[in-house]
Amino acid sequence: MKVTPECFPCFFSQAVRTCRHLGLEDQQIWDVLEAVHHRLSDINREATPSRIGKDVYHLLSEKTGIVDPYEAVKTSCTQKALALYPDLKRKIRASSDPFRLAVRAAIAGNVIDFGTGKDLDLQKDIEANLQLELAVDWTDELRTLVEKARHILYIGDNAGETVFDRLLIEELEKPVTYAVRSAPIINDAVEKDARLAGLHEVARILPSGSTLPGTELKDCTPDFLEIFRSADVIISKGQGNYECLSEETGPLFFLLKAKCAAVARDMGVRQGSLVLLRSRLFDSIRSL
Amino acid sequence: MKVTPECFPCFFSQAVRTCRHLGLEDQQIWDVLEAVHHRLSDINREATPSRIGKDVYHLLSEKTGIVDPYEAVKTSCTQKALALYPDLKRKIRASSDPFRLAVRAAIAGNVIDFGTGKDLDLQKDIEANLQLELAVDWTDELRTLVEKARHILYIGDNAGETVFDRLLIEELEKPVTYAVRSAPIINDAVEKDARLAGLHEVARILPSGSTLPGTELKDCTPDFLEIFRSADVIISKGQGNYECLSEETGPLFFLLKAKCAAVARDMGVRQGSLVLLRSRLFDSIRSL
Repeated sequence: MKVTPECFPCFFSQAVRTCRHLGLEDQQIWDVLEAVHHRLSDINREATPSRIGKDVYHLLSEKTGIVDPYEAVKTSCTQKALALYPDLKRKIRASSDPFRLAVRAAIAGNVIDFGTGKDLDLQKDIEANLQLELAVDWTDELRTLVEKARHILYIGDNAGETVFDRLLIEELEKPVTYAVRSAPIINDAVEKDARLAGLHEVARILPSGSTLPGTELKDCTPDFLEIFRSADVIISKGQGNYECLSEETGPLFFLLKAKCAAVARDMGVRQGSLVLLRSRLFDSIRSL
Repeated sequence: MKVTPECFPCFFSQAVRTCRHLGLEDQQIWDVLEAVHHRLSDINREATPSRIGKDVYHLLSEKTGIVDPYEAVKTSCTQKALALYPDLKRKIRASSDPFRLAVRAAIAGNVIDFGTGKDLDLQKDIEANLQLELAVDWTDELRTLVEKARHILYIGDNAGETVFDRLLIEELEKPVTYAVRSAPIINDAVEKDARLAGLHEVARILPSGSTLPGTELKDCTPDFLEIFRSADVIISKGQGNYECLSEETGPLFFLLKAKCAAVARDMGVRQGSLVLLRSRLFDSIRSL
């Protein structure tokens, strides 16, 4: 998915929001905005939003000297999510369809996102999102492929959301590689965030090589690419990964909440929808 | 109130939103964004948000050839508001405190705003906002001054909101001048919008000279300025007028919903609050 006109104001919004989060003064924020403004003057309209987003956040780190502005938020978010884990785990185990409920929990977990600027009351938001119907629902197709799969690649998104991913991974009952970003970017999970969520107990955690708030294959390590090319099922979480992988071929399933207008339009759903979408360029040959 | 860092992304958002409203293609929207980007490269940080907002909308009209992109919206909004008028009128008349309820209706009417990008279900939004407490409430002070006033200046804001202004003006029971913008800007009311709402039956409608989505005195006509300087009470509706008049001296009362973070911070209230605020530089000498 290429950058859209809606992304343009959003890059500036994200910069301002992060500056406010860091408690900067207006004068400093204007300086950051000026740098972002300059960077966006020759915006490449063929780039993904994640690619440009990375530039904006890196610029912000350069101007402020703060490499990981959401570090504390990520830890606190993961801890809040861990507090919800036991109850959700019980509900999934008691459900008549544990797989489906775990899928929904993983999608609901995608409410966590500091890139889109919504305030978060985690428990309330998770509960509300668990009540919503999926606007696109390929759960049965995913289930069928998972049952036949030898190896699953699960591409994570945000810290805290990781805990909800763990609930789903535990229902997959297959060997799973859990890919994370290779460096901090917004509140996206890196290896230590995934470990704090306990994902090392249920999957192999693999930094993908990506330092975007998404996963473009051209940035990825040979190790990640080999798994991407050979996995029988690929579960891709969140908007950033969708932005980067929506034109890729593979047994790809996108699980996310379409939080922004641009992603929602690209997917053909209403903004705010919960989605389990099979890739347009779906390839199930490996799974047959 | 001076432009804030939060205004910067908002100018771009408003441009994109208006382009979408006009059904433009992405390529055309990018062209508009490029022009806005260029315009905002030497942003005057001493200017009001309304001043820069006007430039952005004018640029948009220049690029698209459409002078009044919200013309149809303004008419339809006024008609929807007129449909709610009889019921609200009955409720005000039956109320134990008609003045207070009319004030609240006028503030609730400020939910109408296409600059801030919220979808609108008018009846539902008005009812919901009539239930909210005011975060700042100088209603009694306003009432006292209105009772003693010989002449009141009422500075209108958006088309449709005009109908709710009429409900309050009918309770003032004093000679009122109702100021409107002198040219179309966003969905702000011009003379014909005010007439459609029936304001000519209860007030003298006066184009202020302003073509901003607010009212800066330096743009205003001598006729308006004379009334501004001599009125015993000035009721200023909405964010745009607040942005432009918050540093002016006079018997000013700001009635609005603080829809954006920047205005809310400037007023010291939470975003989304309903407010009846007396000016910081309040001057009641004329009313004594």
